[in-house]
Amino acid sequence: MKRIAIQGTLGSYHDIAAHKYFEGEEIELICCANFEDVFAAVKRDSQTIGMLAIENTIAGSLLHNNELLRQSGTQIIGEYKLRISHSFVCLPEEDWDDITEVNSHPIALMQCREFLAQHPKMKVVEGEDTALSAETIKRENLKGHAAICSKAAAERYGMKVLQEGVETNKHNFTRFLVVADPWQVDEIRRHPHPETNKASMVFTLPHTEGSLSQVLSILSFYSINLTKIQSLPIIGREWEYQFYVDVVFDNVLRYKQSIAAITPLTKELKILGEYADGKSNI
Amino acid sequence: MKRIAIQGTLGSYHDIAAHKYFEGEEIELICCANFEDVFAAVKRDSQTIGMLAIENTIAGSLLHNNELLRQSGTQIIGEYKLRISHSFVCLPEEDWDDITEVNSHPIALMQCREFLAQHPKMKVVEGEDTALSAETIKRENLKGHAAICSKAAAERYGMKVLQEGVETNKHNFTRFLVVADPWQVDEIRRHPHPETNKASMVFTLPHTEGSLSQVLSILSFYSINLTKIQSLPIIGREWEYQFYVDVVFDNVLRYKQSIAAITPLTKELKILGEYADGKSNI
Repeated sequence: MKRIAIQGTLGSYHDIAAHKYFEGEEIELICCANFEDVFAAVKRDSQTIGMLAIENTIAGSLLHNNELLRQSGTQIIGEYKLRISHSFVCLPEEDWDDITEVNSHPIALMQCREFLAQHPKMKVVEGEDTALSAETIKRENLKGHAAICSKAAAERYGMKVLQEGVETNKHNFTRFLVVADPWQVDEIRRHPHPETNKASMVFTLPHTEGSLSQVLSILSFYSINLTKIQSLPIIGREWEYQFYVDVVFDNVLRYKQSIAAITPLTKELKILGEYADGKSNI
Repeated sequence: MKRIAIQGTLGSYHDIAAHKYFEGEEIELICCANFEDVFAAVKRDSQTIGMLAIENTIAGSLLHNNELLRQSGTQIIGEYKLRISHSFVCLPEEDWDDITEVNSHPIALMQCREFLAQHPKMKVVEGEDTALSAETIKRENLKGHAAICSKAAAERYGMKVLQEGVETNKHNFTRFLVVADPWQVDEIRRHPHPETNKASMVFTLPHTEGSLSQVLSILSFYSINLTKIQSLPIIGREWEYQFYVDVVFDNVLRYKQSIAAITPLTKELKILGEYADGKSNI
């Protein structure tokens, strides 16, 4: 039985992603109120695995999670890409005309802007979590309230789905990372051991001409391919930038050599994890 | 008198940024409900200038605005970096003990998570805009309501500031872009003409080894320095990536030559604007 710490409650998108990633395995979820608590759960018990959203095609990167990950010392052991589709749900005995207020997580609310704009009379109230909003409405029998959450959450809490697919942009995907204590990585990894063909890293470069181009040229000489690059200014250090880079490769030895080759040209290079390119339900 | 289309109302951070950028000039604001309307205002009247947030140190890039900008055909003519500090404000006759609900824009609410967590009894309700939340509370005399907005908005609408600096992270800066009709760019630019030393561009590359490294090497050979790079997957085109890149340079001729040199190696290269590196109140 694997213990997986997620942000959110049962029926949340993290729950769905965790069950998809660990399909066929028995897992127990540790539901955390926020991402700090997810990392704290992994730190407290080295057997616990964390799962956290890292980027969304609409909302972009979760910069705060990048930073928590970098500071946590945990290692990425896998990833999962989940298509996010929101449902508009209410108490089973209610209908469209009854709804005066809608509750959900702020990011889910943002992803449903067009739908909400079509219903300007509904008061939009933020909650901690998508699934928790549905659960609270049911538990407290909050008449007139609707939630925006997954269809799975609606089913779990016995809510009525008034409309599916209320997200504005249907190309709404979230990439989740699976993280573990660095000393437990080999133990925890799924058996059979998946082929490592992807890595995430972060490094700092001086803000001088060509510093990034040198690093990328070396990666290219070693046949290492970028799948993501994002620069972040370092507040208080005006002349340096931090880069988050994901790479894929066929040859693990070549990848290791390339990291050795770029290390002297970067500062604070940190490998956040080496893992298998993500499965997805796309 | 310059007409500036912004998202938000008087007292919003866009208002503050517009007045800082056009300091000493007479400006008239066109307040728009959303960013689509800002671009529509520029399209309707080629003399109108748009101003829009493009990235924030905490919330990250506004990917939707990147996409609107790319599709709009407008050109960036300048930028401004504003330190964002939120105040917690209420009706002048009320105090802490009276507050049961807090209203603001979802991004502002997210930036004040720690403050809100310290006051769990307050209901968090989303509004369209920070300043509009303050204005509504005052106009409708909504007892028990507080808004999170700029101090300038509190002063404009006669609200009482209960606490300043309620944002979680004090390194909270937003970068705003100033955009104009491409045929009006030279007319509209500020006189004296500021020195052009920065450019923003977007291009597509095949997802093959080294394609980005080649482009960045060429920019480096021409002494063009990156200040931002962000990759975005193109949904539905799995093997191509879109890159948003900002560069700075000393020599405009060398910059033009570098663009000519990278054009054959990229697809759909679009220069979003050439302008002067941003002033700021940092």
